[in-house]
Amino acid sequence: MPSQVEKAEAFRAMHRGAELLILPNAWDVPSARVFEDAGFPAVATSSAGLMASLGFPDGEEMPRRELVAATGRIAKSLSIPLSADVVAGFGATPRDVTATVRKIVEAGAIGINLEDGRPSGHGLYARAAQVRKIESLRRLQGSLGVPFVINARTDAIRHGSGTPRQRLREATRRAISYRDAGADCVYPMGLTEAGSIGTFVRELECPVNVMIRPGLPPLRKLQELGVQRVSFGPGASYATMGLLRRIGRDLLDHRTFDRLLDGAITYDELNELAVPKRATPPG
Amino acid sequence: MPSQVEKAEAFRAMHRGAELLILPNAWDVPSARVFEDAGFPAVATSSAGLMASLGFPDGEEMPRRELVAATGRIAKSLSIPLSADVVAGFGATPRDVTATVRKIVEAGAIGINLEDGRPSGHGLYARAAQVRKIESLRRLQGSLGVPFVINARTDAIRHGSGTPRQRLREATRRAISYRDAGADCVYPMGLTEAGSIGTFVRELECPVNVMIRPGLPPLRKLQELGVQRVSFGPGASYATMGLLRRIGRDLLDHRTFDRLLDGAITYDELNELAVPKRATPPG
Repeated sequence: MPSQVEKAEAFRAMHRGAELLILPNAWDVPSARVFEDAGFPAVATSSAGLMASLGFPDGEEMPRRELVAATGRIAKSLSIPLSADVVAGFGATPRDVTATVRKIVEAGAIGINLEDGRPSGHGLYARAAQVRKIESLRRLQGSLGVPFVINARTDAIRHGSGTPRQRLREATRRAISYRDAGADCVYPMGLTEAGSIGTFVRELECPVNVMIRPGLPPLRKLQELGVQRVSFGPGASYATMGLLRRIGRDLLDHRTFDRLLDGAITYDELNELAVPKRATPPG
Repeated sequence: MPSQVEKAEAFRAMHRGAELLILPNAWDVPSARVFEDAGFPAVATSSAGLMASLGFPDGEEMPRRELVAATGRIAKSLSIPLSADVVAGFGATPRDVTATVRKIVEAGAIGINLEDGRPSGHGLYARAAQVRKIESLRRLQGSLGVPFVINARTDAIRHGSGTPRQRLREATRRAISYRDAGADCVYPMGLTEAGSIGTFVRELECPVNVMIRPGLPPLRKLQELGVQRVSFGPGASYATMGLLRRIGRDLLDHRTFDRLLDGAITYDELNELAVPKRATPPG
């Protein structure tokens, strides 16, 4: 099995390669394992998906120790790198955020997503305050000896103020500050239009993450625009719940169960997804 | 909100109605909640689905306290009855099984599935031993004051010995004993063929549960045969993992993400599935 440092270095390199990194977000052990088995080189968590699965809304209402435990379960089940969504870091200070990320990395993650939206949709943390958190995480990389990847998300497009153009400008300004503070990748949540994505990538000159959502250009176009990483966000949870709804309607309205059986995996396959994946020996 | 006793009585009545009870098995909070919202009158857990989601294979390797906690999370998220899969009860004696079911009912469940297969596929518990466990659960209903529904599953068709016909005979013999010991419903795991289902139901003269799997007759036919309850087993987990596999292949092989977005629910809908469902006020 690769060590945690090797996983962190491998994940870091995926942000500098010629290929677009397609990063699926999972919410529990089998959803992560099925993505590893499908051939993805790394997996991430989605806070919305993971927290919902355990009965909490997205945000920081879930106790931090439960987030750490759930992240650890998933990390231990994979042989590939896992990046963890830590929302805004569970606390307003650099010390709080660093303590959270330390626990998350100790649980096995080799990358994190940190957002600048205050929990529960109360606007944005100040840019300077967010910069200090990222600088603190940069120092944590050194003290832990694990070069985990910092993906700095800005929610300025969604939760900032002003016109769409002003919000985009604020998102760009924030992302530049986060990059300069030591973020390895920046993530402008809500950016989906090709022209704006292209401008953002050119201004940043560092790895940029976008999320798959309706209206996003095709992957080929994203790669042309210079996007380095595209993630699912909570999309796999949304898709799954949509499927369960359709299965329910089929049974209750039409009394059919084909959709429950078609394309399903087996009992043995489900059990295999529950146990840790061992890295395939080389050759 | 209905009380736990009211939920148990309502669930019990669903086994005696003119309509076939279609019982979806969930593995976590949102998968259970989406079934409640779809209109099912009750939800069950699947041990394979629930345990895999937390990184354990189906069986009794998961610590019992974690099963109880996960069942409680799901029960608290629903306003409708929840029946819990307790595998073989986490222990070989009536005392062990009763202690497990007590905790499961205290966590909010109002029905249980108890199987006679030994954990990890080591054959079957003796019929007489299983009868004593069910008798003990019958007494627990009284001492708790909660008339939870006992669904007694026999694995004789899958894990028994002899020819298929001998196994079916053994399953029938066991199910009759379990019924006489106080089971409210019996569940011959692996029975899918219409003729055998009809014979089994006629011999039992009590509510019978079958599981949706390839080859099962249509629901209309099951109702004609006298089946009272049809459950998903781990089917929703199998279907979900199949969908995630296809999403993965689309992205890696064809670089398309339509399947991730089509028919998906939204962020707000996912968050709503994470918080407890309140019963709709009458009228």
